[in-house]
Amino acid sequence: MRSIDVCLSPDLIHLYPVQESAIVVVDILRATSCMTTAFAHGVESIRPFAKLDECLAMKGNGYFTAGERDGKKVEGFDFGNSPFEYMHDSIKGKRIAFTTTNGTLAIARSEGAKQILIGSFLNLSALTEHLTTIPHNVLVVCAAWKGKVNLEDTLFAGALVEKLKAVAAPSCDAPLMAQRLYRQAKDNMVDYLKESSHVKRLARLNIHKDIEFCLTPDRYTAVPKLMDRELTL
Amino acid sequence: MRSIDVCLSPDLIHLYPVQESAIVVVDILRATSCMTTAFAHGVESIRPFAKLDECLAMKGNGYFTAGERDGKKVEGFDFGNSPFEYMHDSIKGKRIAFTTTNGTLAIARSEGAKQILIGSFLNLSALTEHLTTIPHNVLVVCAAWKGKVNLEDTLFAGALVEKLKAVAAPSCDAPLMAQRLYRQAKDNMVDYLKESSHVKRLARLNIHKDIEFCLTPDRYTAVPKLMDRELTL
Repeated sequence: MRSIDVCLSPDLIHLYPVQESAIVVVDILRATSCMTTAFAHGVESIRPFAKLDECLAMKGNGYFTAGERDGKKVEGFDFGNSPFEYMHDSIKGKRIAFTTTNGTLAIARSEGAKQILIGSFLNLSALTEHLTTIPHNVLVVCAAWKGKVNLEDTLFAGALVEKLKAVAAPSCDAPLMAQRLYRQAKDNMVDYLKESSHVKRLARLNIHKDIEFCLTPDRYTAVPKLMDRELTL
Repeated sequence: MRSIDVCLSPDLIHLYPVQESAIVVVDILRATSCMTTAFAHGVESIRPFAKLDECLAMKGNGYFTAGERDGKKVEGFDFGNSPFEYMHDSIKGKRIAFTTTNGTLAIARSEGAKQILIGSFLNLSALTEHLTTIPHNVLVVCAAWKGKVNLEDTLFAGALVEKLKAVAAPSCDAPLMAQRLYRQAKDNMVDYLKESSHVKRLARLNIHKDIEFCLTPDRYTAVPKLMDRELTL
């Protein structure tokens, strides 16, 4: 049986066999939820950048710019980091340069993997289906918050461990922990996350609607994949 | 209210305010459980070493040597890493140089903290009592396994978050996660840990008795504390 492991923070990535794994990058609130949403609404490609200035330099260069720093839209960017900004027809066929506090850094740290896939509750079942068809061990890389583990990405990792249990066994304690937290949380994730630090941070920015949306499973079937530094379907 | 945080792996220590914190180092299986047991049975002091050769160099130098690598006693050492080795009268008044795969490294990474305390289920209530009397924020540093988070240290961290909830609030998601896992586990920790990787590793070494002992709360009142690189009471 294949294995599934969970890297709870990009700062622990050195402990994992990146090059032998299919990596699922997850930043539930909100980078990978936005990316999933954008592809479901027809975006052509998204190029992730860990650094703000490199992202900004793409503006006009055939790319629209998008993302956030510390939860807030960046001045001069075309789009922010709310999934609701990526639901319009105007997104169709666009190429977007994207940077966020944590999510795009997690993608950068995953370079060299067999595959790099974008995960969110929004595409959970489609992603599961894709992962069952490939031969690699799975590594979920949680974006976390500036290196510190967070509850929402861990819950997603646990959901994926649970979904894949017939084909992939937890390879150490992190996937077990994630799975057990998910089982505890799954019937009411919004409530379960109320005390979490990032939800409290976002609540201060008034984006309850985003939180509920990002915790909705299986709204889309898009599974974005990184190829030559660019996410496409 | 003071805060309590949990560093799930020594590889994440750079994210935490070590110098402003009272740090509790925990390596349930088995370093900090051994240390607690040794002090409860009259050891005079324990000097922790992250490196094996430095520990070995103390032999004859007024110190007995103790510890393990990868769960096994080191050749030439006086004591191994089972708490049952530290229960005899022969331990009384001894000074011990101690090194383990993870626990003593976690102590080394905690250097500079306001206080460095040794935590285990064996001294949980005594430790809680001590922590309520000091003014500092609390940081639990889990020894983990070669950098990877583990379930047993996380459960102990959760137990401490739960015990201290009247005086210290979780400062981010790691203490919340630990607390929720502990609540799920507390009624039968031995069972809860059966699938954990370190318990499976130790079970192969035939030390079920150690595991059950190390998960027993409040057997001792000793709270070892690091002063000038040496643990004493």
